[in-house]
Amino acid sequence: MRNFKLILEYNGTGFCGWQKQIKGRRTVQGHLEEKLKKIFKKQIHCIGSGRTDSGVHALGQVAHFKAHTAMKPQQIQKALNAFLDPDVAVLKVEEVPLSFHAQYNAKSKTYRYIILNRFYPSALWRNRACFYPYKLNLSWMRKASGDLKGRHDFKCFQAAATSDPVKNSTRTISSLSIQKQEDFIYITVTANGFLYKMVRNIVGVLLAIGSGQNPKDCIPKLLKSKDRTLAPATAPSYGLYLVSVSY
Amino acid sequence: MRNFKLILEYNGTGFCGWQKQIKGRRTVQGHLEEKLKKIFKKQIHCIGSGRTDSGVHALGQVAHFKAHTAMKPQQIQKALNAFLDPDVAVLKVEEVPLSFHAQYNAKSKTYRYIILNRFYPSALWRNRACFYPYKLNLSWMRKASGDLKGRHDFKCFQAAATSDPVKNSTRTISSLSIQKQEDFIYITVTANGFLYKMVRNIVGVLLAIGSGQNPKDCIPKLLKSKDRTLAPATAPSYGLYLVSVSY
Repeated sequence: MRNFKLILEYNGTGFCGWQKQIKGRRTVQGHLEEKLKKIFKKQIHCIGSGRTDSGVHALGQVAHFKAHTAMKPQQIQKALNAFLDPDVAVLKVEEVPLSFHAQYNAKSKTYRYIILNRFYPSALWRNRACFYPYKLNLSWMRKASGDLKGRHDFKCFQAAATSDPVKNSTRTISSLSIQKQEDFIYITVTANGFLYKMVRNIVGVLLAIGSGQNPKDCIPKLLKSKDRTLAPATAPSYGLYLVSVSY
Repeated sequence: MRNFKLILEYNGTGFCGWQKQIKGRRTVQGHLEEKLKKIFKKQIHCIGSGRTDSGVHALGQVAHFKAHTAMKPQQIQKALNAFLDPDVAVLKVEEVPLSFHAQYNAKSKTYRYIILNRFYPSALWRNRACFYPYKLNLSWMRKASGDLKGRHDFKCFQAAATSDPVKNSTRTISSLSIQKQEDFIYITVTANGFLYKMVRNIVGVLLAIGSGQNPKDCIPKLLKSKDRTLAPATAPSYGLYLVSVSY
């Protein structure tokens, strides 16, 4: 038995997220397992570093699977890229120790959220950036983002309706940057773990602060409240990218 | 009567090119005119700087239309962006003299061709870059591109099966650059005009030279031959972008 680590890029637009679901819903994990079955002639279980939601993209999702095979990693990559639909691509395959687990061994993850901030939309960036046509004060957003960095209980940024809420909602954000390039704003967040919809809820509060809907100093109060209903609306899924996972 | 100049971005994937055609085929011009009719309550003819083929994208296509209206340019832009499907966006509307003609007054155009050059594909760039998994020698391509610059009869780079071949196939390429950034190669060409499929045929010959299929010095002979059948295959449409039109 050998263990393989995959690095995956996908366009989330045509997927109901990462996680395999009831039949008839197209998911990245389901699609991958279907193609792995074609290659290895048996059911293969492919475990990701974590779920991504419907519409969320990945530049570097990590997954692993175990198989009895003599194939070289690059042969597996070529075979997968030949079989997979063109909205998923395998960027790398490498053999890893049998103990490697894409989810349990993940030390940190980086997500990026892309906002197109001008008064007219983009045809080429639709479904790949969040169009936000209102004025944003970046220095307010950057200042407020300081209140998110470090170790906090992020319960107020965890989706209220999640089917399996985690017991411990304390996470550590090691970096959070807000960069502007032409009409695009990139919010990049690295943490040791993320709660369900945490990045999109963080982007939601930063947009509310940048647009003046929320006071600049609202974040410490929100964190303290641990109440999702007090925080602003979740930002849409299609602006979000899972950039990388560190082990 | 007033005359309006539009700058348009579109994702060519879902369009059978720019030019309005027989019913049932979705084109950018047809889609625009349909929405202009909704706004102005009458048939409006919208003239582009030139055609783009099925699958070809635009970052800055220019068009003009005439209308009796009291609307401000920015109101027209907002109305169009509200009505248009999300794979077309109006980047700018400005009022221009009645004499302005998007096609006849065009002095030069710039096209860009994007090649993804690595052995595995990209999920997020599919339909927006040409995936070319073979080795390319960029210095051969750059050297050969010098033979294309300047004033030449580009008949050998004009699509053979065009329904209306132009009589004079002499054009002047004022600049042609080949840039590499990570795994992407950008070929950017500016000329006073382009023949049908000229950019994609130029990219075809540069790929043939870069991959070693054609000799490095083949371009002067091809130009002299004026024979399309001697030149390498046309590069696919989805890597091509109309960047801008100068007046």
